[in-house]
Amino acid sequence: MKIINEDITIDSKGHSDIIDITHQVKEKVSSSRLKNGSVLVFVPGATGSVTTMEYEPGLIADMQAALERLAPKKLEYDHNLKWGDGNGHSHIRASMLGPSLAVPFTNGQLILGTWQQIIFIDMDNRPRSRELVVQITGE
Amino acid sequence: MKIINEDITIDSKGHSDIIDITHQVKEKVSSSRLKNGSVLVFVPGATGSVTTMEYEPGLIADMQAALERLAPKKLEYDHNLKWGDGNGHSHIRASMLGPSLAVPFTNGQLILGTWQQIIFIDMDNRPRSRELVVQITGE
Amino acid sequence: MKIINEDITIDSKGHSDIIDITHQVKEKVSSSRLKNGSVLVFVPGATGSVTTMEYEPGLIADMQAALERLAPKKLEYDHNLKWGDGNGHSHIRASMLGPSLAVPFTNGQLILGTWQQIIFIDMDNRPRSRELVVQITGE
Repeated sequence: MKIINEDITIDSKGHSDIIDITHQVKEKVSSSRLKNGSVLVFVPGATGSVTTMEYEPGLIADMQAALERLAPKKLEYDHNLKWGDGNGHSHIRASMLGPSLAVPFTNGQLILGTWQQIIFIDMDNRPRSRELVVQITGE
Repeated sequence: MKIINEDITIDSKGHSDIIDITHQVKEKVSSSRLKNGSVLVFVPGATGSVTTMEYEPGLIADMQAALERLAPKKLEYDHNLKWGDGNGHSHIRASMLGPSLAVPFTNGQLILGTWQQIIFIDMDNRPRSRELVVQITGE
Repeated sequence: MKIINEDITIDSKGHSDIIDITHQVKEKVSSSRLKNGSVLVFVPGATGSVTTMEYEPGLIADMQAALERLAPKKLEYDHNLKWGDGNGHSHIRASMLGPSLAVPFTNGQLILGTWQQIIFIDMDNRPRSRELVVQITGE
């Protein structure tokens, strides 16, 4: 068994920008030449999350609306009062959806549903360049 | 260390049907004969989630009510307007709770609380048969 | 590759008490002497969660307010009607945020953002002493 650490760089627009990272994750698994194992995708940062969804424009808009219901931007956040960042809602959304996702692979292929993509959501309130960790463990 | 890939088939009623899969996961860990490691349970599909809960009828109803508050079925979803599937709420619920759960085991036993079961929630809006991935990594 | 099982004991006040466990997790990774791998933090129990956040008083209050919006304490829960525990909201919050978190490490260091801490949230409605599992897998 081996562990291979990679990262992928994502340029996002922020404001709950949802980005399909399936292709980059697949490429890292493929170039690892491991056949059997799992890939851990991790966001080093407190305002981003990884999960899966069917990546199509309708659901992208629906997810952004759902995140707005979950932690509305216009609420008063103590974080904003104290630090003036204006991204209290970003932090809450990110902590609730979580920074970490593990996906299994066999025969060098990620096991995903036909309509299931791996997504990164940048909850922050400004454009950012992000380095996500892609750690592949397998044989 | 070894990696063993199994799957379990679950017949669900959909509509946020909550199914206790602890027994099946335990059985896979037991038949792997691995003593020490973790099991990754993964839903290949964009309308199902895995997490843990105390599996009793009161909380099952409470969780279904909470999912309805999180992403109400009757809201207007762009996904539904575009594709007519009527399952926009299913997708949002599944992405928010997530498709992936890792549980550690030692001495061949899952480390779960006394009142803690592993559950699969089928958020889709129709009955389905599902194959969940159970990947066991350990020694 | 090796797997090392540790646990950490956390005394919490309950009522969605949010506790920074980064230091304890780092210490376990450090004393494992493994350089490269991931750490799985798991709550054996149905009323606690692990995730990450920027651990500062403003966001702690904001997260507690957000959990109250997600599953309000004063709602009627079937769990409470049946068992009289009064912690239906605790269970729902814990299942939604999840009991499990994996964080990668390289060179013996957890890969976390500068303002990102690992937190345990005790959603239960009373003070408790908790044993969290910290399983380190690596080389």
